[in-house]
Amino acid sequence: MKLVSFSVAGGAERPGYLLDDTAEVVDLHNAGFASTLEVITSTVAPELSSDRYPLSAVKIHAPLSNPPRIFCIGLNYRDHAAESKMELPKFPVVFFKMAPSIIATGEAIVLPPITNEPDYEAEFAFVIGKGGYRIFAEHAMEHVYGYTILNDVSARDIQFSTSQWSLSKSLPTFCPLGPAIVTADEITDPHALGISLAIDGEILQNSNTRELIFRIPELIEYISSITPLLPGDIVSTGTPAGVGLGRTPKRWLRAGETVTVSVEGLGELTNPVVAG
Amino acid sequence: MKLVSFSVAGGAERPGYLLDDTAEVVDLHNAGFASTLEVITSTVAPELSSDRYPLSAVKIHAPLSNPPRIFCIGLNYRDHAAESKMELPKFPVVFFKMAPSIIATGEAIVLPPITNEPDYEAEFAFVIGKGGYRIFAEHAMEHVYGYTILNDVSARDIQFSTSQWSLSKSLPTFCPLGPAIVTADEITDPHALGISLAIDGEILQNSNTRELIFRIPELIEYISSITPLLPGDIVSTGTPAGVGLGRTPKRWLRAGETVTVSVEGLGELTNPVVAG
Repeated sequence: MKLVSFSVAGGAERPGYLLDDTAEVVDLHNAGFASTLEVITSTVAPELSSDRYPLSAVKIHAPLSNPPRIFCIGLNYRDHAAESKMELPKFPVVFFKMAPSIIATGEAIVLPPITNEPDYEAEFAFVIGKGGYRIFAEHAMEHVYGYTILNDVSARDIQFSTSQWSLSKSLPTFCPLGPAIVTADEITDPHALGISLAIDGEILQNSNTRELIFRIPELIEYISSITPLLPGDIVSTGTPAGVGLGRTPKRWLRAGETVTVSVEGLGELTNPVVAG
Repeated sequence: MKLVSFSVAGGAERPGYLLDDTAEVVDLHNAGFASTLEVITSTVAPELSSDRYPLSAVKIHAPLSNPPRIFCIGLNYRDHAAESKMELPKFPVVFFKMAPSIIATGEAIVLPPITNEPDYEAEFAFVIGKGGYRIFAEHAMEHVYGYTILNDVSARDIQFSTSQWSLSKSLPTFCPLGPAIVTADEITDPHALGISLAIDGEILQNSNTRELIFRIPELIEYISSITPLLPGDIVSTGTPAGVGLGRTPKRWLRAGETVTVSVEGLGELTNPVVAG
């Protein structure tokens, strides 16, 4: 199932799922789910419903607008750690993005004057279904509800003005997310997915989730050894090489561009960039 | 007003305010406020009500259990930066604690086996009333709803195992908060308040908010220049010297102890420490 949040004709956001074959969205609100978070936390799987809209008639929102937390993993691809001139971490480097920064596919990344170095980061993210504390790696996959795409937009000048990164990654619109949460059953091997990012068609990041240093079971074991994971928590697994910071010359996001992150099986997350 | 969250006889949490003189809690739930966050975001001040309980008959909860965000400022007292062997920051060092870690006064700080270096940090915190983006320092105080106490409990071994601090400060129960949010009108000068921390009566931190490097208006201007502040956001202003990390020998929290943080005019935040 490709879980989405959508609205029709300016109405309230509601959960649904995408039918790729017919380009339709099935309404889950009338099936008793108030939000995508309710679908994720429910133990009852939604049934196929005849309550459908053509995809062209709906607005797609971010698939989760208020997750309990967005855990982000830094330096989790060898080539990106190298281009950032940072050592490979012995433990996962965890920081947070803040939910008010979330935007949907199609919505604009707004570049404010406070940063001169806005950068992109293509990331493969997973969403927790069943929460848990002290989860062992061998049981970790039972806690994954599904997968999505996250663009970890970062203000590099703010990021490196102090030692702590979270604030520089939590500017408004700096967390494009989606388009959908693809449930775990649809992805045979989450550690063998192509991941790429293109700006106006030029491919700038191109890797595969098999290159992850800390994989999903290790990340779940590590984080949940410290703090319980909750249903709806997002864990964004880090970005591969090719970010603007790592290029010569450095290459920042510019108003007028369009950024597209693609992950095999998860679709495309596309956002225009505008000045704010 | 001393805004609190309380419950009676195991019932649901509800907002109220403390009457120090008579040791009573005035119920604001029946006045139409579902939560303390609703009181904070409301433009209508609660009226004095006759709907009261004796303080001895209620349980006091944390005054905000689900703030949008908890911004924490690192190294914001000169003496603490020195004892941490870190340079004085040029900009406020901002990290986050996560809301699921919040506990009330009287509740136990639980020390899990994952850390061998649990530490305390007495902090003076403020709560945003009116949100805003790009707030100038000279207007910042208009955005402060009130003040409270926060103990930024930290797992030092986890904190320094990577470069990013937030996760090590977000273990369960690692965010004692309260007992109340004292509204801004009751505090003549928030930059002249004694702040101290004692364990079992031994004073280990003892300073004054006049020693803050970045004061409230500068913090509001800085944070809101990067991301809009929201009603109910908590900003914890950092800790003075005397934390366990800065002592010789280092001194960690131990099960069986009781930690009390006091800030002039804001009361006392007291938590027993237990093994988990």
